[in-house]
Amino acid sequence: MPRYKLVVEYDGTPYSGWQFQDNARSVQEVVERAITGFCGHPVRLHCAGRTDAGVHATHQVVHVDLERAYRTDTIRDAANAHMRDEAVAVVSAQPVTEAFHARLSARKRHYTYRILNRMAPPTFDRERVWHVRQPIDVARMQEAADTLVGHHDFTTFRASQCQGRTPWKTLERLCVERRGDEVQVRASSRSFLHNQVRSMVGTIVLAGIGRWTTEDVAAALAARDRTRCGALAPPHGLYFVGVDYAEGSDVPPEVE
Amino acid sequence: MPRYKLVVEYDGTPYSGWQFQDNARSVQEVVERAITGFCGHPVRLHCAGRTDAGVHATHQVVHVDLERAYRTDTIRDAANAHMRDEAVAVVSAQPVTEAFHARLSARKRHYTYRILNRMAPPTFDRERVWHVRQPIDVARMQEAADTLVGHHDFTTFRASQCQGRTPWKTLERLCVERRGDEVQVRASSRSFLHNQVRSMVGTIVLAGIGRWTTEDVAAALAARDRTRCGALAPPHGLYFVGVDYAEGSDVPPEVE
Repeated sequence: MPRYKLVVEYDGTPYSGWQFQDNARSVQEVVERAITGFCGHPVRLHCAGRTDAGVHATHQVVHVDLERAYRTDTIRDAANAHMRDEAVAVVSAQPVTEAFHARLSARKRHYTYRILNRMAPPTFDRERVWHVRQPIDVARMQEAADTLVGHHDFTTFRASQCQGRTPWKTLERLCVERRGDEVQVRASSRSFLHNQVRSMVGTIVLAGIGRWTTEDVAAALAARDRTRCGALAPPHGLYFVGVDYAEGSDVPPEVE
Repeated sequence: MPRYKLVVEYDGTPYSGWQFQDNARSVQEVVERAITGFCGHPVRLHCAGRTDAGVHATHQVVHVDLERAYRTDTIRDAANAHMRDEAVAVVSAQPVTEAFHARLSARKRHYTYRILNRMAPPTFDRERVWHVRQPIDVARMQEAADTLVGHHDFTTFRASQCQGRTPWKTLERLCVERRGDEVQVRASSRSFLHNQVRSMVGTIVLAGIGRWTTEDVAAALAARDRTRCGALAPPHGLYFVGVDYAEGSDVPPEVE
């Protein structure tokens, strides 16, 4: 069966998260139905990174197996035509070999967290940013972030219901940047624990607004204790923004 | 009466435009009611640039006279508290002398027009961008834009119901820039005719997608004939983004 890699973009606001759930509308269900709508058979999508309810994606990657080959433009346009009223779009499609797996072939995942840092409430981005009124000192917040970069036991920054095998992860990047009224945090890692990005952001913001010191953040990490997490940032500021794959894993199949 | 200059931001989608209208919800009405809500007397707002239904503003400037003085933080926060469910926010407030008039003191107005240029439909920005599927050649579009910069009779690019005294305007800037999937047009002028930015954008996009030549755009301008306008771009891609004032016009009053 021909396999395709799709890049999917979605506003997470109206959905229960990526993953299929009974009694709730998931992004997975919306996209699977749209693809079934034009190819006429049930399909199963596999994604690079599951997102929780309210979390957005500008660059989610999925793969899907279809019963016959299609032009990639057809897949993109037909899928989009079948979800016209949804806040979800297939941005691109490309053929890949069966060696490609959206989740298993991923080598690095990238998230961006958006904070609106001003007194006035958001207008354009009500469900798209975390509104923090206290002035954030970006240099202090970056200093706190630096203590989390590297190979650590991230138990403190992991949801209690997280099902990951190990709390040890290598955080490759945690960068804090101000752009006018907005503070953005960029996080990159091979993989993340459940709620890890939101837990880290919620905690380093405490340093940014002066309620915690860098040492407090370092001590929370060292404690390996979920109750020491500073705060969990809300889901609606979080965006899944990209995935790196092992070189060659997503090459198109050779034409026979 | 103490006069204040306010910077106001709004998502134009749910409103009938800036200006007060019977039987429709305008941004002006929303902000006037919010200010009356905390100061207790009727107020009249004057804005730098009226926007049509669906047009947005990241930096609208207004002035208002209040019966007594308030801290500027109080004006901003109290106004925002009185329009909590609206897509409108007062971003900042500052005291000014009676010499300042949001419209009459303005020396230059700035607009940005956002175009999403890809096959997939918008997800985050459905009512915030114009979706153009045909690939835009930004260099060709800029070449067409260049023919419009300068002092011209803009009758071709003016709404037939425009009430401006003269169709002659000096367009100071019309810049086209690509940022990934998005093409942005920045327009600056002392003042604009009604629908001028949307008429210019609609027309230069025709050059960008190869349906018109630069010469066609120049000929349309020279014709001074509204029926020669290429197309009117939709309101929801347009943003009022800033105003320049004559130096010293918006200084705070001296404390007595």
